[in-house]
Amino acid sequence: MSVLDVIARRVSCRAYRPDPIPQGDIERLLDAARLAPSACNKQPWRLAVAREAATRARIVREGFLPGLRMDWALDAPVHVVLGIERALATHRLAVLFSGVDYPWLDIGIAGEHLVLAAEELGIGSCWIGWIAPRPLARLIGWPRAVRPVAVITLGYPRDPGAASPPAGRRKALAEIVRWL
Amino acid sequence: MSVLDVIARRVSCRAYRPDPIPQGDIERLLDAARLAPSACNKQPWRLAVAREAATRARIVREGFLPGLRMDWALDAPVHVVLGIERALATHRLAVLFSGVDYPWLDIGIAGEHLVLAAEELGIGSCWIGWIAPRPLARLIGWPRAVRPVAVITLGYPRDPGAASPPAGRRKALAEIVRWL
Repeated sequence: MSVLDVIARRVSCRAYRPDPIPQGDIERLLDAARLAPSACNKQPWRLAVAREAATRARIVREGFLPGLRMDWALDAPVHVVLGIERALATHRLAVLFSGVDYPWLDIGIAGEHLVLAAEELGIGSCWIGWIAPRPLARLIGWPRAVRPVAVITLGYPRDPGAASPPAGRRKALAEIVRWL
Repeated sequence: MSVLDVIARRVSCRAYRPDPIPQGDIERLLDAARLAPSACNKQPWRLAVAREAATRARIVREGFLPGLRMDWALDAPVHVVLGIERALATHRLAVLFSGVDYPWLDIGIAGEHLVLAAEELGIGSCWIGWIAPRPLARLIGWPRAVRPVAVITLGYPRDPGAASPPAGRRKALAEIVRWL
């Protein structure tokens, strides 16, 4: 399956079968994230992997903000929490000149490597950004220097091939592209 | 070629042949970015595509910050400038609760879709974040609401298969992953 096919097939999966993901496959997905490019190769990403049901329940109960129904995330057999650890020159000083918040871009890149590699293995995923960073950092046990920025749920889709709502329409190229 | 192979093979390409990229391929790459997931499906990405040599020269001369030798970028036959257009609720209000700067993550995701789709077609790429946002916005003609955040150069590698320096070593999984 080509990269473009994988990209076109990926949807945000919000209904999982509880079957575990083989450990070797989890490590392949983490490796896909690890190989991502980053500003000055600083690799600001940190990842925490939750497989135990009790830990995942704590992530859902304590690590997400209220207001959205997130119980579906309990069924995902793996939660990957993504965090940023900033380096001084690239992530605190360079941004003063360019205005570019490099580690956020880098985490988007690395996390999507993981998501696309998962899709290829038939593993569904969903980016979750409605998080409570401090409780999440506490329950992971990350040092203060690491800031949680997103959770990606992983698991086998209950209904493969079906887009789970909201499967959003995308803007047309003409709405987002300017040809110079 | 699998997604994992494409991810493992990708390097930041800083030496291009001047051969043009077929228009159909450019549009396939833009489409890969267009299909990315984003917070609340807001699709904050805007893209500007420069193919004319004079326009690319202006991007390099006026749109990058001083201090780094960037002349290699002149040889890349296509420059894609990525910008963010923020939506009120998701990108200005939600971030006050979660601290998650959603559109930056989204741009990382969308840009890397483009990069991986390019790699599969044998097209090299390089993320450039050492940019001068205001001059870049002016020369593109973007409205004030759109903020440039990165440039991706695209073209056929002068030396395919070779990593152009700096081809950074990556941290081991044990350095970045915590198992809960």
